[in-house]
Amino acid sequence: MEYVEELRELTEKVLELLAAKNFREIKTLLDELKPQDSALLLEEIPEKDMLVIFRLLSKENAAETFVEMSNDSQELLLNAFSDAELKAVFDEMFLDDTVDIIEEMPANVVSRIIKQSDTETRARINEILHYPKDSAGTIMTVEYVSLRGLWTVKQSFDHIRKVAVDMETISTCYVIDEKRKLLGRVTVKDLLLHDYETPVSDFMETDPISAETTDDKEFVAQQISKYDLNTVPVVDKENRMVGIITVDDVLDVLEEEATEDISIMAAVTPSTDTYMEQSVWQIWKNRIPWLLLLMISATFTGLIINVFEGRLNLLSPLLFACIPMLMDTGGNAGSQASVTIIRGLALDEIRPRDALKVLWKEVRVSAMLAACLAVVCFGKLYLLDGLAFGNIIGYGVYPWYICLAVSVSLFSTVVIAKMVGCLMPLLAKVCKLDPAVVASPFITTIVDALSLIIYCLVSIIIVSPFVVA
Amino acid sequence: MEYVEELRELTEKVLELLAAKNFREIKTLLDELKPQDSALLLEEIPEKDMLVIFRLLSKENAAETFVEMSNDSQELLLNAFSDAELKAVFDEMFLDDTVDIIEEMPANVVSRIIKQSDTETRARINEILHYPKDSAGTIMTVEYVSLRGLWTVKQSFDHIRKVAVDMETISTCYVIDEKRKLLGRVTVKDLLLHDYETPVSDFMETDPISAETTDDKEFVAQQISKYDLNTVPVVDKENRMVGIITVDDVLDVLEEEATEDISIMAAVTPSTDTYMEQSVWQIWKNRIPWLLLLMISATFTGLIINVFEGRLNLLSPLLFACIPMLMDTGGNAGSQASVTIIRGLALDEIRPRDALKVLWKEVRVSAMLAACLAVVCFGKLYLLDGLAFGNIIGYGVYPWYICLAVSVSLFSTVVIAKMVGCLMPLLAKVCKLDPAVVASPFITTIVDALSLIIYCLVSIIIVSPFVVA
Repeated sequence: MEYVEELRELTEKVLELLAAKNFREIKTLLDELKPQDSALLLEEIPEKDMLVIFRLLSKENAAETFVEMSNDSQELLLNAFSDAELKAVFDEMFLDDTVDIIEEMPANVVSRIIKQSDTETRARINEILHYPKDSAGTIMTVEYVSLRGLWTVKQSFDHIRKVAVDMETISTCYVIDEKRKLLGRVTVKDLLLHDYETPVSDFMETDPISAETTDDKEFVAQQISKYDLNTVPVVDKENRMVGIITVDDVLDVLEEEATEDISIMAAVTPSTDTYMEQSVWQIWKNRIPWLLLLMISATFTGLIINVFEGRLNLLSPLLFACIPMLMDTGGNAGSQASVTIIRGLALDEIRPRDALKVLWKEVRVSAMLAACLAVVCFGKLYLLDGLAFGNIIGYGVYPWYICLAVSVSLFSTVVIAKMVGCLMPLLAKVCKLDPAVVASPFITTIVDALSLIIYCLVSIIIVSPFVVA
Repeated sequence: MEYVEELRELTEKVLELLAAKNFREIKTLLDELKPQDSALLLEEIPEKDMLVIFRLLSKENAAETFVEMSNDSQELLLNAFSDAELKAVFDEMFLDDTVDIIEEMPANVVSRIIKQSDTETRARINEILHYPKDSAGTIMTVEYVSLRGLWTVKQSFDHIRKVAVDMETISTCYVIDEKRKLLGRVTVKDLLLHDYETPVSDFMETDPISAETTDDKEFVAQQISKYDLNTVPVVDKENRMVGIITVDDVLDVLEEEATEDISIMAAVTPSTDTYMEQSVWQIWKNRIPWLLLLMISATFTGLIINVFEGRLNLLSPLLFACIPMLMDTGGNAGSQASVTIIRGLALDEIRPRDALKVLWKEVRVSAMLAACLAVVCFGKLYLLDGLAFGNIIGYGVYPWYICLAVSVSLFSTVVIAKMVGCLMPLLAKVCKLDPAVVASPFITTIVDALSLIIYCLVSIIIVSPFVVA
């Protein structure tokens, strides 16, 4: 909160200085900011002044700030840049950031960027653009330190000194042979702990954990997280080293992945743009198919009511009033189980072969939950609603057999909801579908239908004898 | 999947070798595994053999493997360890891991661990144990490289060489004064890029981003993620350096945080234990309060039906059949909006001051969604259910005015659900509550009640004239 205030104050100050044409002061202010904060500041500046302020950034900060800005602002700036400015910004950028930007820009902007890059960069950009969507290749960095096995520690340090300035990280170096095949992994710590004359191959970690360019980026993220790595080398099909993936890229992947799961569970098609970046039209497109699908499937529960309506009405009109509570509780019980299982599957804490263990756990938990809810429900209906409130709002006393019918139905609904809730995600996983897709909304629809059928049947069985008599 | 297969095969092989008492072969197998994988393997071994296999691990791997095991297995091993074994394992461990284990173990085990540690370690453990829950202090590492500003690059390297072996990371070193106050930050890359005789203070980054011991760990995680850092220094109230937090700890924090939000949104009290680790009783405790609360609040929607039941029944019994569809669609529409906003708030992509922008966006999106759903709903009821299916299952044709009443109610419900869904999390944030707590289940209950009232009123207004006439 404080931070937001600071940013706002800073923005106002910059705008005042701009009005006073005090560019030198703005430059001093900007020099003190981290690129991430300059980017946030620039987003607050009116569009017409953005380029003026951007030009006041130091050369090193300009590229880093540009990378941190939103796609809309990037496009705005790119259209306003001279060719020389564009080249200056992109020359300072790491190749993976360039590719990220290219993927988001319209064709005319892309062709300007490509035109400003040298032949080698152009070839590399093209290569990265051809890796499959969401693969390791698309998020890797091609600037990394490679060493040779025969080099001594001294030779390695000399090499690192020479190339370090262009590298995103030097903490982990990779040892390759003359065909660029990956042989091992050496950290700067290892280098520092060994004698200057020792060859790197003497102490390198052989057979390091690596990823292939076509591996899914979520898989790589999980490897990095599991083995507590700072970088993972990326190799092609022939084990030739082509790049590295660093842990900060992985942080983004893991956040994206969680957001994706959360969106799908809430029946929204996930998007890589933030909410504020998405247009009304995009948001509509991400939501409408699910709402339509769920609405249509929910109308079928209506058919169940239609079928039983006559019978229920003869028994007692009070029975209808409990339908929302039954359906909601069933839905909540189901989504508690399904969401827990889905998250467990996503974090690899639960595996499909645990299905029986999970089921047995849920059977016991659901029996305990259902018993507790059924007792409270009976008490609430019979004592509170029936005896205390009943006469006040004038819908009479709930007879005990109706309370019993509702409680019995509630018990069965909760147990069935938990079973459906825990089994559906596991089933999805076994069928190689995304477990999140079957989450709460779909399970709610299924549980709604089942609970209505149970309720109608239980009511007829329990209540009939009393009403007929 | 392949990986799970491999692990199972390996486990079987180890058990066969154990039966044949071929310990040497097991040792060779274990030496090839990463500690994370040895830990997974050990979890698969029957309890009675676990210690035998654990003793075959090399000294360095033993501690790392132990750290990666589940709390239950750790406790089992600790109870079986001799005092010397216990000391050997804990001596190899980083202090933050020791503290993590201590926090999970019963008192008798803790006192054995403490007894085996030297006085200094004991004092430090105590200090860390006293930091507030979920604060930076509880996840920091106290093994880090500190340099002095006047040291030259050469002196710094000599120092790093001397201490590196006990450090979790040396990629980033921190410069402190004689009172341990934090002055700056230097990466190994910086050191390599400067002359041997340059003093560190010449090129260190002054005023580095740091955290206080009492800062919330989620805040630190966001800083590391935002500024793409590998480590953050942790200081006390007097800016004296006490530890560092590394990015791999932060990966765990971010995953935990996402799991927590997901749990709360599904109306489950979050737990730091995995699903498989939790007992039936624990799971029950995490779920029952929410289910009870939501059930009780849902019974109030029943009162609405009670109040209007007589009127609706006179109008047309067909009206009841559409209640589940209306309530479900309202609930889904509401949770789409709320979950999106909650996630945006968690990732700091949406801020409370964006409330008006968010509201205006949702007004437009919801109008478009509602219009589309209302039209489809009318068509489905009138054409498909009414004309096509109506006579088949024998509940007659839906008259157009009932279809109209349902569609109009659906339109209003969706718009209201979206408004409630986007405003509630923002309101929670402003009131410094956790936005996730107000998520889908609560919003569903509110939206259910509102949509029922709308439906009953709209039906009475639209349908009455036709039925009375």
